[in-house]
Amino acid sequence: MAKKAWGGRFKKSTSKIAEKFSESISFDKRLYKEDIKGSIAHVTMLADQKIILKKESNKIIKALKEIEKEIEKEKFKFKEEYEDIHLNIEKRLIEKIGEIGGKIHTARSRNDQVLVDTKLYIRSEINEIIDLINELSKQFVNQAEMNLDTILPLYTHMQRGQPVLLSHHLLAYYEMLKRDNERFSDCLRRVNINPLGCGAGSGTSFPIDRDKTTKLLGFKEASKNSIDTVSDRDFIAEFIFCCSSLMMHLSRLAEEFVLWSSKEFDFIDLGDEFTTGSSIMPQKRNPDMAELTRGKIARVYGNLNSILTLMKGLPLSYNRDMQEDKEPLFDTVDTVKGCLELNTEMLKTAKFKAENMEKALSGGFITATDIADYLAKKGMPFRNAHEVSGKIVAYAEKKNKELEELTLDELQKFSDLIKKDVLDVIKVKGSVESKISYGGTSSKNVKKMITLAKKELSKQAKN
Amino acid sequence: MAKKAWGGRFKKSTSKIAEKFSESISFDKRLYKEDIKGSIAHVTMLADQKIILKKESNKIIKALKEIEKEIEKEKFKFKEEYEDIHLNIEKRLIEKIGEIGGKIHTARSRNDQVLVDTKLYIRSEINEIIDLINELSKQFVNQAEMNLDTILPLYTHMQRGQPVLLSHHLLAYYEMLKRDNERFSDCLRRVNINPLGCGAGSGTSFPIDRDKTTKLLGFKEASKNSIDTVSDRDFIAEFIFCCSSLMMHLSRLAEEFVLWSSKEFDFIDLGDEFTTGSSIMPQKRNPDMAELTRGKIARVYGNLNSILTLMKGLPLSYNRDMQEDKEPLFDTVDTVKGCLELNTEMLKTAKFKAENMEKALSGGFITATDIADYLAKKGMPFRNAHEVSGKIVAYAEKKNKELEELTLDELQKFSDLIKKDVLDVIKVKGSVESKISYGGTSSKNVKKMITLAKKELSKQAKN
Amino acid sequence: MAKKAWGGRFKKSTSKIAEKFSESISFDKRLYKEDIKGSIAHVTMLADQKIILKKESNKIIKALKEIEKEIEKEKFKFKEEYEDIHLNIEKRLIEKIGEIGGKIHTARSRNDQVLVDTKLYIRSEINEIIDLINELSKQFVNQAEMNLDTILPLYTHMQRGQPVLLSHHLLAYYEMLKRDNERFSDCLRRVNINPLGCGAGSGTSFPIDRDKTTKLLGFKEASKNSIDTVSDRDFIAEFIFCCSSLMMHLSRLAEEFVLWSSKEFDFIDLGDEFTTGSSIMPQKRNPDMAELTRGKIARVYGNLNSILTLMKGLPLSYNRDMQEDKEPLFDTVDTVKGCLELNTEMLKTAKFKAENMEKALSGGFITATDIADYLAKKGMPFRNAHEVSGKIVAYAEKKNKELEELTLDELQKFSDLIKKDVLDVIKVKGSVESKISYGGTSSKNVKKMITLAKKELSKQAKN
Amino acid sequence: MAKKAWGGRFKKSTSKIAEKFSESISFDKRLYKEDIKGSIAHVTMLADQKIILKKESNKIIKALKEIEKEIEKEKFKFKEEYEDIHLNIEKRLIEKIGEIGGKIHTARSRNDQVLVDTKLYIRSEINEIIDLINELSKQFVNQAEMNLDTILPLYTHMQRGQPVLLSHHLLAYYEMLKRDNERFSDCLRRVNINPLGCGAGSGTSFPIDRDKTTKLLGFKEASKNSIDTVSDRDFIAEFIFCCSSLMMHLSRLAEEFVLWSSKEFDFIDLGDEFTTGSSIMPQKRNPDMAELTRGKIARVYGNLNSILTLMKGLPLSYNRDMQEDKEPLFDTVDTVKGCLELNTEMLKTAKFKAENMEKALSGGFITATDIADYLAKKGMPFRNAHEVSGKIVAYAEKKNKELEELTLDELQKFSDLIKKDVLDVIKVKGSVESKISYGGTSSKNVKKMITLAKKELSKQAKN
Repeated sequence: MAKKAWGGRFKKSTSKIAEKFSESISFDKRLYKEDIKGSIAHVTMLADQKIILKKESNKIIKALKEIEKEIEKEKFKFKEEYEDIHLNIEKRLIEKIGEIGGKIHTARSRNDQVLVDTKLYIRSEINEIIDLINELSKQFVNQAEMNLDTILPLYTHMQRGQPVLLSHHLLAYYEMLKRDNERFSDCLRRVNINPLGCGAGSGTSFPIDRDKTTKLLGFKEASKNSIDTVSDRDFIAEFIFCCSSLMMHLSRLAEEFVLWSSKEFDFIDLGDEFTTGSSIMPQKRNPDMAELTRGKIARVYGNLNSILTLMKGLPLSYNRDMQEDKEPLFDTVDTVKGCLELNTEMLKTAKFKAENMEKALSGGFITATDIADYLAKKGMPFRNAHEVSGKIVAYAEKKNKELEELTLDELQKFSDLIKKDVLDVIKVKGSVESKISYGGTSSKNVKKMITLAKKELSKQAKN
Repeated sequence: MAKKAWGGRFKKSTSKIAEKFSESISFDKRLYKEDIKGSIAHVTMLADQKIILKKESNKIIKALKEIEKEIEKEKFKFKEEYEDIHLNIEKRLIEKIGEIGGKIHTARSRNDQVLVDTKLYIRSEINEIIDLINELSKQFVNQAEMNLDTILPLYTHMQRGQPVLLSHHLLAYYEMLKRDNERFSDCLRRVNINPLGCGAGSGTSFPIDRDKTTKLLGFKEASKNSIDTVSDRDFIAEFIFCCSSLMMHLSRLAEEFVLWSSKEFDFIDLGDEFTTGSSIMPQKRNPDMAELTRGKIARVYGNLNSILTLMKGLPLSYNRDMQEDKEPLFDTVDTVKGCLELNTEMLKTAKFKAENMEKALSGGFITATDIADYLAKKGMPFRNAHEVSGKIVAYAEKKNKELEELTLDELQKFSDLIKKDVLDVIKVKGSVESKISYGGTSSKNVKKMITLAKKELSKQAKN
Repeated sequence: MAKKAWGGRFKKSTSKIAEKFSESISFDKRLYKEDIKGSIAHVTMLADQKIILKKESNKIIKALKEIEKEIEKEKFKFKEEYEDIHLNIEKRLIEKIGEIGGKIHTARSRNDQVLVDTKLYIRSEINEIIDLINELSKQFVNQAEMNLDTILPLYTHMQRGQPVLLSHHLLAYYEMLKRDNERFSDCLRRVNINPLGCGAGSGTSFPIDRDKTTKLLGFKEASKNSIDTVSDRDFIAEFIFCCSSLMMHLSRLAEEFVLWSSKEFDFIDLGDEFTTGSSIMPQKRNPDMAELTRGKIARVYGNLNSILTLMKGLPLSYNRDMQEDKEPLFDTVDTVKGCLELNTEMLKTAKFKAENMEKALSGGFITATDIADYLAKKGMPFRNAHEVSGKIVAYAEKKNKELEELTLDELQKFSDLIKKDVLDVIKVKGSVESKISYGGTSSKNVKKMITLAKKELSKQAKN
Repeated sequence: MAKKAWGGRFKKSTSKIAEKFSESISFDKRLYKEDIKGSIAHVTMLADQKIILKKESNKIIKALKEIEKEIEKEKFKFKEEYEDIHLNIEKRLIEKIGEIGGKIHTARSRNDQVLVDTKLYIRSEINEIIDLINELSKQFVNQAEMNLDTILPLYTHMQRGQPVLLSHHLLAYYEMLKRDNERFSDCLRRVNINPLGCGAGSGTSFPIDRDKTTKLLGFKEASKNSIDTVSDRDFIAEFIFCCSSLMMHLSRLAEEFVLWSSKEFDFIDLGDEFTTGSSIMPQKRNPDMAELTRGKIARVYGNLNSILTLMKGLPLSYNRDMQEDKEPLFDTVDTVKGCLELNTEMLKTAKFKAENMEKALSGGFITATDIADYLAKKGMPFRNAHEVSGKIVAYAEKKNKELEELTLDELQKFSDLIKKDVLDVIKVKGSVESKISYGGTSSKNVKKMITLAKKELSKQAKN
């Protein structure tokens, strides 16, 4: 068994079972790039501050870059007995360049490393996720633009309500995703704070320059309180919450895709590439990818639950419990990115079945509200107008007619206020186009929003 | 049984059991102020846009204000059969001023009302919570200022680590709370979007002016997509997450207060007003308020879990499930505000026991790291310095001495690099003051942070 | 401010804010019956053991019964300053019969009371919930019996799969509920252990007889370790888990009711009493009760999350955090009972639309698997049979025919193994009746299960 | 790209991204043993029922056993394109023995396989977990037996309460673990139901014998409703709940180990093998294994949250979301087993520091309750006795004496009822031994419970 970095005063070595129980190298090796990046910045600063010699730092940096390549080429042997990525790299460093390698740990602690690695990692992943969200957003805008003539019922309580443009419906997801992006950006501001230089929790007596590492690593500023810094895992919880919110939106989309793929709705064709068959029922075409997207929300909610449970009631400052923050974090990142990529591709090839959506508009007296609004505009108090409209629906139902099929004469029997212009109002297309209020479903509005969305997306792309 | 607002075409009335099952008036009556505020803005705009007459709007507004007073004076009879706060108020309005009251619902739906009420409510509560957080923050800064001479061990793994200023420890909480405030502010930006004018989900054909209600209600802007607007409960989930994060911090504080109140630590006296006795063990002085604070995190985590579960996989747009958003929201608000108030008062009167904290500094070779750092500064690679320091500790342990009690001669046996200046380094006070890195525990640093915190708090107060 | 029961050595009284923060009387007054029941058993035992006099116990018991009536008649004044139900009752007792009332607390502590009350409460609620589950189960069996001729597609992936009897589908819920009942019964075994007699956690030196109170209160046995007993809240967590599992089943039923109520499926009519209208769209008939049932799962999941979070990492024995166990418990009980009652009534009046279910059987080549099975039975390896069956489907699709409409000649072109008996196999009814395996959908099987279910339910009713 | 088992009618093959998104082989390969076991039972039954030939079944079984060996020797190539463990094995089977291998899927579906594999897996893991719990229980009993003379304070609110035997405290964990075992056993009854024979959800038309496979696979009985069977994941949720409850207990133990390892308590020495040092603070001895145990509860709570979220609102019968049940299940099993093993070993070598526990008994007037009980026994109403006891404590505090140090004279000033026998009562040992009530801390009681526990454990071992 290898000697531990902290083993000086211990009489017995760690038991094998404890070593296995407590190692993190099996999952934190994923942070090797960030660990090396953080070490290089640290060592550069140490030399600048004359805490170590320039030639020492050069030697260390050169060796660290070699180690990075060894890992990338899968030639690096990770050892469980060295516990974590930080010590695995340090051990290899000393192996390569001798005891001078030990200078890398001057004026820093593992707490520093854990935090700088995790923050660099999340920062990079947030940026990737924002890009992936924009890709998906783009598909919603594309599909909205391509389906400007398609009308479907807006469902409330899973019942057909008012007619809306499919484009308007798709842009609702654009808005959700925009909020998600905002949340990730806000989270990023809190992630992007330099923890390096807090030592084991009290700071350090070495004349380090935290502004220097802040700059080298692209952080916005250095953290202000060393105890808070090593105790803090807020940024992981917030990140996983942002992911939960995003997954919640994707689960709603997935639910609609599953519903719309059913024979009963038959509103969408997700394409052979994104559906599967049954091993026993040859006629099936299953929206598995949508179902899995819906199911994968469970992992991310679970991970949020984990990180919050983990941090409940922990006294300051570092407690080993906190090592359990990594796996929910990594699993969340993988799940979210996988779902975004998949859904972008799936949406790209999805075909919306306009004719079936249109069929769903009939039989539900879907413009009844428009009659009520029509009457209210002519001066009838809304509650009365609502009642008259109800009676017209009852009449149409009895006559087995659509509202559009009623004649002006028939309609006028219910109120003197009804004039010829009602005939536009009760048409589905007329109803849609009448919704001119800002944010409403009229095609004029929707086109404006598409233009705006495209502008926003191209601005995002430039950032 | 009362006739329902939507009852026109129904043959049978709602069963009593269903009525009870689905009513929300028992909890959403809490939103009466917001509901009336939203209605007044809506009606004002309707009149401005000539959708209703000015004199109609005046009449309605006057009556609404009377209703508000009736409710405040507990003279208003809430009826379960009118389901919710919106219809209870509307019914009373019509009762008071006749069918003209029905005009209030022109160009809006209950979805509009639910959303505008909830958003106004959360906005107002966020502002209150931010104020309460600032009050608590102020107490941390006050206590930090009052305890600048107190040193205690920084615990990691619940083991005594390096010596730090109590003030530095207290300011760690200041930093946590500052992040909480930032999160609430970010959340507020997403809450503060005007939903009014989305109708049942497709917008409206009335020539409403959403900018007008936006201005009247102090929103930042109007929402951009009517379907998204009525489908969205993100802002509740985000708000409860912000509360969860805050409660997590308070649970950590509570844990420390509980620990520090124990005879074993004996670091704090919370005062008779905030401790209780036992019905059977007369000598007990229990930190119940801290324990309850720690326990109350469970409610807020539970509420976050609720709202996320609720929204999983719901297709667009409104589904009745969403009515279940209110109770977790209200319970969260009450819990968080109660905990903030209580802890502010409790912290105000808490007495920190400097002498006991000091005692905890001895016996743990708590400045061993400082020796390692000292040697590293003299040029020894850190890993070696760490080992030498370990040997000195072993020696002191054997001799049954504190590090401070070792003579220069004894120390120099371990390394030629050790000079007279080591004697300052191994003193607790010297160790603290040596941590001059930005964010470290030296009193110079901590005083700077206190000044900064006071500036930030006074700036917050002005906003 | 009232003097506290434990106030002897305290110099200052509890602050008003702390009193409000820590009181539980506002919610635990609900346990008054259990508290009095427990006290009567305790006092009876004390007298039997000659720890107090028989006439003292008689006086106390008489007064306790009067107090119970005062509470029932709402003549009892609950006071926040007396903190909880236990002290409120004790104070009143002493008020009524003088200091002898104080003897009630001989040989017991509040921990004893909290636990005995909660356990009696949960025991009683479990029994009620089991009854309510049986009521709902009965409705499933009734509906199964009434709909024995109705066939619908079994959906997998929300796609029409094989034809099954509606009765078979309904009995799936019967099985789920049966498991729920088993879980509640198992939980009850662990609830039904007598905690009384553990004192504050170490037992008592009074010669109490725990078997006596066990018998008086109908517990199965006395708990074996006083420390465990006062530290334990497992039984609440387990109870809420059982409720979560039940609610999960109800949420699945609710989802199906919502889907089936849509125009797209149109499989069910829930009745006017259990649906509602829209304030703005007169044609709507919304399955609100099903949606709310689906939504209410969120509360119970949230409550489970709460109780588990609460107990995480609490050291033994009692900690005040544990007071936070009550509200999630009460809310869970109310939610679960409300949902069971509502759904029982709703299911009672629900009408299943057999003709629409039948329509859903066509167009999906729903008996394709039966052809594969047919061929496999004739000796073709199943994977090949599956492929042949796929080709027949493709042919039928191209010819725009149902499988039932294909002639024997057409079918025989695909395999020599196909004989005249295939014509029964490809009929929907034939397919259903062929599923003769135990647990399958053939009407013979289903009838057998209905008979069995009725037997089980009548046996349950007798218990 | 490989041809899919269900690919017959599809024009385009699954996209690479979808294939990767939906594969489960990367984690469900873990079920290979169970899958093969289930297949062998199925095929044996098919031959017995003459659905396939005996020689066919022999050939298949032989090949399956070879495949099992290939997997064990890591010579089996798992392919992502074959999606899952079931198809990977089937493909290899056909590769080995030709199209006859395809007969294995006669009269069953993948749903059958998924369920039978998972149930066999959980059954086996429950049995292992029960054994591991018993191992840990044994250590508690051993330590209880070895520490019968050690007294420590029972903490409530983290305050020293009454004196109790350490053995009694340790046996509290024995009781918790016993309940855990009961819950696992109850869960096992619901797991141990044979799902095989439900086909895709409607049963099968083949003359299968489900009793036969029930017997071959050691299940208790066959499931009663094919739709319920394929829709059900209750047993996973219940299993993870049982694990959550167990982890909650371990987190409480871990909290105590962390506290007791602190210098402030200093009640336990966990041994060098189970503690670690700091990379920067040489004097530290950290109870990392206890902290990690406490932290790992977060994973299991998170996994429970996942499975419950997953199943919320899913309509019957199978939905692909349900594939997401595996990873939380596997992670829970690994975590729970790891924690049980680790804690068993750690407890085995732990040393309790009797002298420090004893020290904690002084200074807290820890036998004050005993005085109150003493007086109550002499006839004083308990509330008054409590007050007198409080006054004696106040007196002792003022005189700076322990209760044991007060003279009879001093004591008698507070009440005439006090006689010489009070002197035993106020001694710590006397207090402990006086707690003779069933379940109390007297050594007589505790010894009885140790004997009982040993009997229970040896009975368990025999099962």
